[in-house]
Amino acid sequence: MTTETTQINVLTADGLLKHWQGHRKLTRRTIEAFPDDKLFQFSVGGMRPFSEMAWEFIRMAVPIAEGVSTGKWEEYKRPKPTTKGELLQLWDEQTAELNDKFRQIPPHRFAEVDKAFGQWEAPGLATIQYAIDNEVHHRGQGFVYLRALGIEPPHFWERD
Amino acid sequence: MTTETTQINVLTADGLLKHWQGHRKLTRRTIEAFPDDKLFQFSVGGMRPFSEMAWEFIRMAVPIAEGVSTGKWEEYKRPKPTTKGELLQLWDEQTAELNDKFRQIPPHRFAEVDKAFGQWEAPGLATIQYAIDNEVHHRGQGFVYLRALGIEPPHFWERD
Repeated sequence: MTTETTQINVLTADGLLKHWQGHRKLTRRTIEAFPDDKLFQFSVGGMRPFSEMAWEFIRMAVPIAEGVSTGKWEEYKRPKPTTKGELLQLWDEQTAELNDKFRQIPPHRFAEVDKAFGQWEAPGLATIQYAIDNEVHHRGQGFVYLRALGIEPPHFWERD
Repeated sequence: MTTETTQINVLTADGLLKHWQGHRKLTRRTIEAFPDDKLFQFSVGGMRPFSEMAWEFIRMAVPIAEGVSTGKWEEYKRPKPTTKGELLQLWDEQTAELNDKFRQIPPHRFAEVDKAFGQWEAPGLATIQYAIDNEVHHRGQGFVYLRALGIEPPHFWERD
């Protein structure tokens, strides 16, 4: 039983993309929950404001899907949004682009080890998992910022 | 290409367990980073102290592995730790128990829909992913507590 279980497949590429996009929908609602000025200025404990975290998610998602797909690791080049409206617009554009890029990943690249952005050596899957986990981690911090501002965060369990 | 990619398997049960335990190691270091009194008393924005979050992770992990494995959803029964030492000891016992229970999950149960704890209907995999994501989310909040206390959190990228 043990050996059988550990070798079985539990997640498809499509399931992974859906999981990621579900988290991205929740992150979008988290961005929306901030008043515009607090999004760019408020933080706790000397940390970054949530706009900087969201900007990091954007700079990771599509470039990572592209890098895992093609082996070319290029830094994100679009200009940094300066308002909540710009950030949400860019977020939505990235949603479509992430679907496109992700679906072009050749099957063998999920297991293949590569050096992401010339620095982080890991299988494609692990690099993608890192991007998702990083978003969940920092979004949780955004929830603390919202609570500290007296604002109810979105429901963690809603991903649609 | 698209259809091929979306149907390919990217993660095994063994890989999922390693991913979970890697996160649990980081959570253990987060618990350790708190001074004993702050672990049980300090929070930001009227939220729970980190000890309560860690206690939630413990009440979820093994009971979820057990429930996905057997279809029996039972609430965690051990007494709640009242010191950092007790919490870490319980954490370590759960690490071994989670490995045991997880490895007994019958292959078909990852995809099978069940009602976790009589309440949350989802495939076994989704319930496990929820437990992991919940831990990453709240641990990120623990990082904010540490920063607010002037304490450097552990490295997010270290999972060993």
